[in-house]
Amino acid sequence: MCGLFGIWGDEAAADKTYLGLFAQQHRGQESAGLATTDGHRLQTHRGMGLLPEALPPEALRRLKNRAAIGHVRYSTTGSSNLANAQPLVVNCRGGEVAVAHNGNLVNSRALRDEMEARGSIFQTTTDSELVLHLMAHRNALQGDEAGLDACLARLEGAWSLLILMPGRLVGVRDPHGFRPLVLGRTESGARVLASETCALDQVGAALVREVEPGEVVTLDDGGLRSRRYAPATPRRCLFEHVYFARPDSVLFGDPVHEVRKLLGRRLAREHPVAADAVIAIPDSGNSAALGYSLESGIPLEVGFMRNHYVGRTFIQPSPDERSRSVDLKLNVIESSVQGKRVVVVDDSIIRGNTSRRRVARLRAAGAREVHMRISCPPTVSPCHYGIDFTSTTELIASTRSVEAIARVIGVDSLGYLSLEGMRSCVGGPQGSYCTACWTREYPVAVPQDLDRHALEARMSGRRPD
Amino acid sequence: MCGLFGIWGDEAAADKTYLGLFAQQHRGQESAGLATTDGHRLQTHRGMGLLPEALPPEALRRLKNRAAIGHVRYSTTGSSNLANAQPLVVNCRGGEVAVAHNGNLVNSRALRDEMEARGSIFQTTTDSELVLHLMAHRNALQGDEAGLDACLARLEGAWSLLILMPGRLVGVRDPHGFRPLVLGRTESGARVLASETCALDQVGAALVREVEPGEVVTLDDGGLRSRRYAPATPRRCLFEHVYFARPDSVLFGDPVHEVRKLLGRRLAREHPVAADAVIAIPDSGNSAALGYSLESGIPLEVGFMRNHYVGRTFIQPSPDERSRSVDLKLNVIESSVQGKRVVVVDDSIIRGNTSRRRVARLRAAGAREVHMRISCPPTVSPCHYGIDFTSTTELIASTRSVEAIARVIGVDSLGYLSLEGMRSCVGGPQGSYCTACWTREYPVAVPQDLDRHALEARMSGRRPD
Amino acid sequence: MCGLFGIWGDEAAADKTYLGLFAQQHRGQESAGLATTDGHRLQTHRGMGLLPEALPPEALRRLKNRAAIGHVRYSTTGSSNLANAQPLVVNCRGGEVAVAHNGNLVNSRALRDEMEARGSIFQTTTDSELVLHLMAHRNALQGDEAGLDACLARLEGAWSLLILMPGRLVGVRDPHGFRPLVLGRTESGARVLASETCALDQVGAALVREVEPGEVVTLDDGGLRSRRYAPATPRRCLFEHVYFARPDSVLFGDPVHEVRKLLGRRLAREHPVAADAVIAIPDSGNSAALGYSLESGIPLEVGFMRNHYVGRTFIQPSPDERSRSVDLKLNVIESSVQGKRVVVVDDSIIRGNTSRRRVARLRAAGAREVHMRISCPPTVSPCHYGIDFTSTTELIASTRSVEAIARVIGVDSLGYLSLEGMRSCVGGPQGSYCTACWTREYPVAVPQDLDRHALEARMSGRRPD
Amino acid sequence: MCGLFGIWGDEAAADKTYLGLFAQQHRGQESAGLATTDGHRLQTHRGMGLLPEALPPEALRRLKNRAAIGHVRYSTTGSSNLANAQPLVVNCRGGEVAVAHNGNLVNSRALRDEMEARGSIFQTTTDSELVLHLMAHRNALQGDEAGLDACLARLEGAWSLLILMPGRLVGVRDPHGFRPLVLGRTESGARVLASETCALDQVGAALVREVEPGEVVTLDDGGLRSRRYAPATPRRCLFEHVYFARPDSVLFGDPVHEVRKLLGRRLAREHPVAADAVIAIPDSGNSAALGYSLESGIPLEVGFMRNHYVGRTFIQPSPDERSRSVDLKLNVIESSVQGKRVVVVDDSIIRGNTSRRRVARLRAAGAREVHMRISCPPTVSPCHYGIDFTSTTELIASTRSVEAIARVIGVDSLGYLSLEGMRSCVGGPQGSYCTACWTREYPVAVPQDLDRHALEARMSGRRPD
Repeated sequence: MCGLFGIWGDEAAADKTYLGLFAQQHRGQESAGLATTDGHRLQTHRGMGLLPEALPPEALRRLKNRAAIGHVRYSTTGSSNLANAQPLVVNCRGGEVAVAHNGNLVNSRALRDEMEARGSIFQTTTDSELVLHLMAHRNALQGDEAGLDACLARLEGAWSLLILMPGRLVGVRDPHGFRPLVLGRTESGARVLASETCALDQVGAALVREVEPGEVVTLDDGGLRSRRYAPATPRRCLFEHVYFARPDSVLFGDPVHEVRKLLGRRLAREHPVAADAVIAIPDSGNSAALGYSLESGIPLEVGFMRNHYVGRTFIQPSPDERSRSVDLKLNVIESSVQGKRVVVVDDSIIRGNTSRRRVARLRAAGAREVHMRISCPPTVSPCHYGIDFTSTTELIASTRSVEAIARVIGVDSLGYLSLEGMRSCVGGPQGSYCTACWTREYPVAVPQDLDRHALEARMSGRRPD
Repeated sequence: MCGLFGIWGDEAAADKTYLGLFAQQHRGQESAGLATTDGHRLQTHRGMGLLPEALPPEALRRLKNRAAIGHVRYSTTGSSNLANAQPLVVNCRGGEVAVAHNGNLVNSRALRDEMEARGSIFQTTTDSELVLHLMAHRNALQGDEAGLDACLARLEGAWSLLILMPGRLVGVRDPHGFRPLVLGRTESGARVLASETCALDQVGAALVREVEPGEVVTLDDGGLRSRRYAPATPRRCLFEHVYFARPDSVLFGDPVHEVRKLLGRRLAREHPVAADAVIAIPDSGNSAALGYSLESGIPLEVGFMRNHYVGRTFIQPSPDERSRSVDLKLNVIESSVQGKRVVVVDDSIIRGNTSRRRVARLRAAGAREVHMRISCPPTVSPCHYGIDFTSTTELIASTRSVEAIARVIGVDSLGYLSLEGMRSCVGGPQGSYCTACWTREYPVAVPQDLDRHALEARMSGRRPD
Repeated sequence: MCGLFGIWGDEAAADKTYLGLFAQQHRGQESAGLATTDGHRLQTHRGMGLLPEALPPEALRRLKNRAAIGHVRYSTTGSSNLANAQPLVVNCRGGEVAVAHNGNLVNSRALRDEMEARGSIFQTTTDSELVLHLMAHRNALQGDEAGLDACLARLEGAWSLLILMPGRLVGVRDPHGFRPLVLGRTESGARVLASETCALDQVGAALVREVEPGEVVTLDDGGLRSRRYAPATPRRCLFEHVYFARPDSVLFGDPVHEVRKLLGRRLAREHPVAADAVIAIPDSGNSAALGYSLESGIPLEVGFMRNHYVGRTFIQPSPDERSRSVDLKLNVIESSVQGKRVVVVDDSIIRGNTSRRRVARLRAAGAREVHMRISCPPTVSPCHYGIDFTSTTELIASTRSVEAIARVIGVDSLGYLSLEGMRSCVGGPQGSYCTACWTREYPVAVPQDLDRHALEARMSGRRPD
Repeated sequence: MCGLFGIWGDEAAADKTYLGLFAQQHRGQESAGLATTDGHRLQTHRGMGLLPEALPPEALRRLKNRAAIGHVRYSTTGSSNLANAQPLVVNCRGGEVAVAHNGNLVNSRALRDEMEARGSIFQTTTDSELVLHLMAHRNALQGDEAGLDACLARLEGAWSLLILMPGRLVGVRDPHGFRPLVLGRTESGARVLASETCALDQVGAALVREVEPGEVVTLDDGGLRSRRYAPATPRRCLFEHVYFARPDSVLFGDPVHEVRKLLGRRLAREHPVAADAVIAIPDSGNSAALGYSLESGIPLEVGFMRNHYVGRTFIQPSPDERSRSVDLKLNVIESSVQGKRVVVVDDSIIRGNTSRRRVARLRAAGAREVHMRISCPPTVSPCHYGIDFTSTTELIASTRSVEAIARVIGVDSLGYLSLEGMRSCVGGPQGSYCTACWTREYPVAVPQDLDRHALEARMSGRRPD
């Protein structure tokens, strides 16, 4: 869960990267960073928090240059520190190099052990540092394409990478293309790389195409060069469409909002119900609720009011306030639900606690019936390719039937979209999407002991800054 | 534009006031403050910024007491400083007293001159300080009801006031009731006063009733006492319904979201148009757009994606980025509007610049026709009773016809809701609403030279903290 | 314990006031403030902490003007808040006015009660606000000299005042002249007022003379005017010479360092002892130790090394570290005292705890004998005129004989300078110094219940910012 | 210019290390850091600024453990950043390891090139990282003493090192012993390593002995082990005695304050002069001035008053204030010098600007004659072993005779202590001190192009945090 942005050949590279990251802030709120180059050296700034805090104006001014890469990072609290912020910038035989990474390597432990045995020292727990060690060791950073490809061949898992050196910017996507990466072009001709197309919109760039799974794209003053370092075997992340990406992005070729409306329409066909109003859980259920309403003919209604001031800086009031089922983020609009049979549409149920509380509040506000509809199948297994939700044991659907879940959250009926139903709403050939979190079928083998925190456990005490 | 909250008789008074203000953060983001009492003394904390910054946890812990009042304040930058934050707390003959005020006195200059001539010194430019001087001079703070009423009789304009003393909490609403003030009750029986009912929801309190125009409510350990210090001549602010209040509040007896849907429905009848989609300007046009869609049968669509990370802390990128018509807050969802005739619903047009830019972006995204519908009449005149929008000369409708405005903002058609249409959507007898910003008919005479910054101009250099 | 600085007729008035306060930072470290005028309005900035924090560069830039007054304030923690920082600036009948005050009024409670009975409201606990109320009520701020003098006649206690209005700067010293106030002149002819002459040195101004006890000095574009509003009955604070003032100041006509050397010389004559080295407690005992050494012929030695990084920002290590008699501020230089008979010179003993600990450390470092010499008589009674040391009960000398004190702090001998001895080291006619803290003879009657915190007790819960 | 502290076997290891660094804050004010271990993992915190800011209380609480090393760092602004703060902590084959370093390697460029050629990546410009790479590559961190010794054999220049691993703490001093490192023991038996003995005093530890040049000391739960990895060829830094160390430390076996008094006495014999007063430049000249006075019989006087509030946080007033020869740090005490012939004693003259300004101020205050005496020979050449003063071209003595310097700074006479004179004041055999900054005789060959900023120039754009 990270966002990438890179640009080559624009005098406002730092500002545009800031804007491109800003449009992708939903992909990571913990830290942000920027590396730029004037063609000779790299300059960098990284900071904790949202962009305005992490990259203050004076940093942007200092980093004014013609090329840049940037990164926003999400992480659980445990591993939250500045040392792990990206891009990581180092000096090595090939000169200075910066790397930003979105995804998760499943063989990082093995690679790390191997590098340590060779005498490497590790200062962070990020995959970015691992990639840099590999490339430095192979001397893959001086234009040696074979060397770089050999390094990439060592990686297993999910990676969209941006690599900045004084003379060029390289973008790489793993052969499965788990995480998105698109190529754009500004009006003045500068090339742009970004995780999502909403970042292109923000900087006034047009979408050119996806970077293909298994493709290496090199941007420099001579323009764009592309090559394939591995055959593409696409397993794009379908959960990006269901939940993670912004509705105004075009993802893997399909507009996200349209896909979600289709999910809602299909959901209405698979799980119809007699009701007076369709309401969304804002904002995750907005597009699917609209689709459900359009397909079913049941009027859309605004059932929950979102408090826009709830943010990461919010300071919790005393514990006994919290236990009073006070919901700081969403308040029910009583006039919208009183005396009505309502269909509540959301994108997923993780642990079920939040859903249960919200259903209770709808009933307290006078809803006569509450029917919940989810725009994907039950989530039963964790993601090992870069989406960080809870562990298997905490997933309510990993051990319970749909009926049992309906009882836990207190609804009159509960319907999940079928796998085929979901799959029919997106394009691409059969099998080109990863659906492991719903099916437990992992396209890339995962080591028995893999744990997102495995590396961190070894360095757990360290919080270098 | 301020929000008030007060509570008597709850051990968690400070925390509940924080939550009540939090639900009303939309009414003021510049500063916030809290005054509490243990029955003997007052304690207070005020700070700049949003609540988490203005009232940090350690302040709340220090202010733990059985009764409290709080305030969130909006102000233009010019007069922004901590000295003007509320509640204001002073020592006087009657002991300690704290005051929080929502509204705007139109005779503050005259009263101030009168008090200064008597030898009073003024440390702020707030109406709150003026009210305190009046009350201290009349010795109106020791339970002398006649004295307090005589002070209130001196005030002209709009005021909802909360006054906290060690022994009681007093709530007052002006005879016209311009600004809202409601009375609630928690499950454990504590009385609550708030500007909006969404604050009651947030603390788990039920709405009892409005404080009436011209009413004084006194809360103490003996319960609730009420008296009328002036006959009620209601002129409630209709713009609160159209724009300012939260959709989940019940305002002046009507649910805001329902009123706004009615405004949208009426707008669809007054200004119908053949179109493919109805889209809202989020979030101000959301409820009215839903009403327009329901009445017209034209499907609702999500045309704009809002970036939730745009906040007051956002640091602007370089000027030439801004001139590139980059909209940091709203991005068009191209798939929703491409090739379509769209009806765009909003609550008002102030200067027209933002509307023009957004219409242009809809057309750039491929909208075939753009029809704008506004859920109130043209705004032609400033508010002198507490809503701070721009000066007359900047209001696009103060000097232009509807046709001229349509040309300026570049729409195919433009329709404003009629005054009667708007009026028909809310309850209450004819004439009980203030509509001065649309009609120039001011219920309370305004001095020729009145200017929100008049007092401040006299003290302009001062920024005491 | 405060420092004042004012200047009229210098384009760099704000910067010079900053420098003048900086030289007087020892007189107050809690908060600082500045008020300036361009001849029409006042501008002000106040902040907590030392000068660089309280008055940041952007504040100085904003306050660039031709005239200014400034203030540094010391206070105990209890009453520490921004609202009490000075100068206080208000609006009243006479226009805008700023006041800064050094000293302590003994009749503030009575005056305050009187003003409150007239209907005044008080927002701070400072004497400055009281003075402003008096002057506003008497309308003494429009050039009415009789009115101002009548106000000053109401004050009892100690006050050096600076009053800034758009058209003039007024300096006042109480008839007893407890606190210092001097008049200087810069090379370009601008007039300067300051508590100590070291502030004149810092801004390149020459000392002209003391402002006399009972004198009012008015600076404006017409130059300097002086008048006497009360006959002078000087009772200058002798403790300023002994301890509080900077050694490089000329105070009440005498150079402080020279006075302190004389105190040390006299001490050597009154309390001679056979010893190997004279050492000072840095920095309070430095000058007197030098005098003792010169008079006695016993060589001066450096016995204690001061850690210059111990400041107000120091964060205490864990409690059990503190109990280990670790002295963060002073370390003994073992080679200076080992095997020696040492005379330790300091300016005073307040509670005795610190002295006892330091004597113990000298012995631990191998000192053979430790003789303590104090350059004033035993401190037996609190100051009510502006110096804030501990209450009577905590003063070790208020209830103990010199022999008993010597036993408590563990010295081989202890000698205090006699009153006559001390008095002989400064100029001026007999009786022109206040010596109340050594003699309990208070020149101005003190109300029975006077307590520095009396007013604050009434407003104790308030911490407005 | 750095300070080290380490401790093994004390429950309050973090607090004691904080105190030990606090006593050595004069050795580095730019950043500070701490690494501790519980026997299994390392924990670390590093921050910019003085200790209270760099290591806040919550960090100390989090780092509570039984063993720790700490570091304070000085650096020029150019290379100032958090990434370069120490201790540096990494993961490698040997597990976790932290390193803190005082000194300067002269072959760091060559070693770095060699490591990069092997594929290592560098994230900082510190010698500490280089040492870690060497040790990781040699696998020297798992108790392999031969491996560690082989690494140390590769280093050239000055290094006092502390290395912390979960199971032990290693202290190393280079064979020349340029920088100090001492071994101490607390009352409860815990072993302590520190740069200066004043740090031992601060934590209540007794000095055991110096760590010898060429010695490796290992502390673990089994106690202390020592071995020699290279023959000792001592070249201790004499400038530490003259200027850098604290007067209350015992350095290389001699008490610093006593050495400085001897320097002053010898200076009085080498350069006598008829005068009325000896004054020191505080605080650098204090001890030598005392010695000069004792030897010459000319009375010591306090000529300069130091403003203790001048610190690194001081914000400079406007430029034209500065040009007015205002000295923020030192003010002349006029009464001490007026009409007198004064001898001014200081430890060194670097560029001469400050000396010239101070001499001018003494004359302006009425000094009849000004004679300057310096307690070491003329400083003619830079230090390459860890003391960072200016480049050769800026050293006033590198191109000027003593007479020419006297004219530049405007004194009546100028005397520098002779090399032999200086050398006679410290112990140890002939040739056991490094005197390169006075003699240009560098004990360790320095590469032609050596420049403290060489490495940094290659990474100059980087400011990773």
